[in-house]
Formats: sequence, structure tokens, C-alpha cells
Amino acid sequence: MNSNIRLLVISTSTIHGSSFLTYIKDDLVDFIQTDELIFVPYARPSGISYDEYTANVQTALADKGIRVSGLHTYSDQKEAIGQAKAIFIGGGNTFLLLKTLYELDLVNDLKAAVAAGLPYVGTSAGSNLTGLTIGTTNDMPIVYPPSFDALQFLPFNLNPHYLDPDPNSTHKGETRETRIREFHQFNTQAVLGLREGSWLHVENAQIELKGTLSARLFQQGKEPIELQPGLLQF
Amino acid sequence: MNSNIRLLVISTSTIHGSSFLTYIKDDLVDFIQTDELIFVPYARPSGISYDEYTANVQTALADKGIRVSGLHTYSDQKEAIGQAKAIFIGGGNTFLLLKTLYELDLVNDLKAAVAAGLPYVGTSAGSNLTGLTIGTTNDMPIVYPPSFDALQFLPFNLNPHYLDPDPNSTHKGETRETRIREFHQFNTQAVLGLREGSWLHVENAQIELKGTLSARLFQQGKEPIELQPGLLQF
Repeated sequence: MNSNIRLLVISTSTIHGSSFLTYIKDDLVDFIQTDELIFVPYARPSGISYDEYTANVQTALADKGIRVSGLHTYSDQKEAIGQAKAIFIGGGNTFLLLKTLYELDLVNDLKAAVAAGLPYVGTSAGSNLTGLTIGTTNDMPIVYPPSFDALQFLPFNLNPHYLDPDPNSTHKGETRETRIREFHQFNTQAVLGLREGSWLHVENAQIELKGTLSARLFQQGKEPIELQPGLLQF
Repeated sequence: MNSNIRLLVISTSTIHGSSFLTYIKDDLVDFIQTDELIFVPYARPSGISYDEYTANVQTALADKGIRVSGLHTYSDQKEAIGQAKAIFIGGGNTFLLLKTLYELDLVNDLKAAVAAGLPYVGTSAGSNLTGLTIGTTNDMPIVYPPSFDALQFLPFNLNPHYLDPDPNSTHKGETRETRIREFHQFNTQAVLGLREGSWLHVENAQIELKGTLSARLFQQGKEPIELQPGLLQF
């Protein structure tokens, strides 16, 4: 992995009993090492507008002195990415997010900027994009993107909001683990299930699992294993 | 709607506390009005083989005197669909199912045969296909189909295994209702949430909701409503 790449790959923007970004704010600010952040609102959770979503991020980070601008407000978005100090892609619908980035022809610009050292923060759908494909998203396919190929900073796939099977459930829909096993019938890459409250800090070609919880690693043809917080080796 | 179209659109093949197809078997047999059934195993739940999946259906229906053959066993699958007495598309992964049907160039054959009166039974992923698109499936996008357009027998979308929000959940992933509301930010067609144990019987251009539960209808720009079992008008 390119040692210039710096990522914060966050399972969820919000944890139970806490408000938007609160639990992760200090780590995010430490990570970006700048007070200027470009926010990418294209995943539009619940259909929220770009302006409103960006304003929510600005509000959440205002007490840290961070100035947030929405990528959608730049007349030249390629130039904005090239000149950004740090970028944050928020959660929502992964299909919509990726389709919009392809339509705006920003996928290669994001890849190039992050490969050159631009700090990248993702939550949920924005974290899905750091993997090889969006083939392990939990989201509903509300729009049809031209490809499922993601930004491919990491050599595996992510499954944010990873949820353990509920032993008391009577529902016959597939569990998350069943879905990921089905994925491995047709795809070879590993899948990392990141539970809510967990995140990855990627720097100097090292991947550190942060938070208090373990993460669940699924590899084709093997039993899933639990990875403890700390540097990941796989 | 074409009055030749005959469909059994089933939310789930299996309900809690019962074995595969048991609760729906009598209705299925009454509906197909034949003892020869072609089964389409391409959705491969949990990656099961085509032969194994077909054998499971044969076992479940054997006591009713139904002979089940897998569509995959025919050298000319187009001809098999054209000559079928009844067809049953089983559940599993909707993306895999639709991609396989496109790859085998069977989408138009299925549309033509059902438009001419071929009885069609779908469960779960097979039910998703009876709607306009697969944009409201719950499945993981483990493969990339060439389109999300489905068989379009019904003038709306389906959401099988419809699940009401859990008021006690601390999980921050989207509820089913939130996902469908996001769908309606970008799509105009209605979405019918079919709870487990419910199914639609379509005949003579009429749609009847069967089972004991209500279904939840989502229309763009309106509050969702509950539809009671019986003939649906919308």
C-alpha cells in the first residue's frame, strides 16, 4: 500500500446516545491537521440537501475551529480536490454517492489526490468507498451507478455498521454474515466488518483498528475471525 | 395490466417455525394448476448449487405430486420457458439472479411467456423481479448486473421481507422505511412492502393481498399506508 495514503475509515458518524460526529470529533481533528475541510455531501442520507448536510458538518465541527465547505459549492470541483487540505465524504446511500462521483468525473481526481497525501475521512458510505468495490454495502440500490468499483485505497472491502446475528430473531431475511459469505462465492477479496464505534486509521502503510470493539474479518474459504484494536496484519 | 398475467408474489419461502415452502404449498399447487414445474435456481441462497436448490424444491413439493425440473438442466432454456406449464423463481440474491437472467438472455423470454399466460411463482428475490426494478431489494450487491430493470409484470416495486422499525434498536443503520423514503427521492413508482407470511395473487388484472397481515404501501410524496388483505386498489 502507498505509504502516502492517509485515511480515517469510520463505521458510523453517530453512535447510540450521542449526537452527530461527537464521539469521533477529537480524532478527526487530530487526523486532518488543518482547519480547512472540504465536505462531500453526495450520499444525501434521508434525501437531505447538499447545503443542509454540509451545514450539519460545519455545526458539529465549529467548536474545533474547523471551516467546512461543501464540494458542491465549487465551480471547478476537480481543482477544489487538487487544492484541498483535507476531505471528508459523509454517509448516506453508497449507490447514490458513487454514481454522483462517476457522473461528475471525480473518481480519478480523488484517487490521485489521496495517493499524493490528501487526508481522507469517510463515514459509512464514505468508508465503503475506501475499499475495492461497493459490493458489501448495506444500502438499498436506489440508483444504478456505472460501476461498483470504489476508490480502492485499501486492498479489501469494508462492511460498515457491521451487525452480529441476533439469536432471538424470527426474521428470515439474511444475516450480515450470510450476505458476506454469499459475496465470497463470487469475489476473492477480504471483507472487514467494522462495528459501530470502530474506525481504521491508515498512515505509513499501516492500518490501525481504533475504538474499543473488535472487527470481524471475512476471507474467502476461511472461517471469519475477530481482529482486536491495534495494528492489523493480514 | 395485461389480464393474461398470473403471478404468485411471495414475500418469503419460509416462515419462522416452519420448513421450506410448507406454509404456502397448498396455495402454490392450487395456483399453478399443473403437476409440472420449472424451477429457476439462479439466486443461489448461501451459494447453494443449482442442483441442490432444485432438489430442495422437489423434496418440498413431492407429496403434492409435483415434478420439478431445474431450468439450468435444459440445453435450450428459451425453448424450456416457451413450453413450460408453470415457472417458479426462488429467492436468494437478487443481483445474482437478475445478472444471470440477463447473461443467459432470458429476460425477454420470461416476459413474453408470462404475458401469454404462463403461471409465475416468485419468492423473495423471485418476487422482486415481478416489479419495475430491483431498486428496492434488501440484498447485498455481490455482483454487478447490466441493469436494475426487472421483469416489470407489476406497475410498482416490491420490498419482500418487509420489516417494521424496531423501537428498541440502538443500531444506526437505516430502517427499511428510511431506505424506501430515500428511494423515492429518485424514483416515482410506488413500493409495496410485503411482510413475511404475505403474498400477492395476481389474476384477471386484479391484485389480491393474501395471508393474515397487512402490507405497507409507499408512494412518492405521501405518508405510507397499510393495505389490508383482499383486492388492492391503487
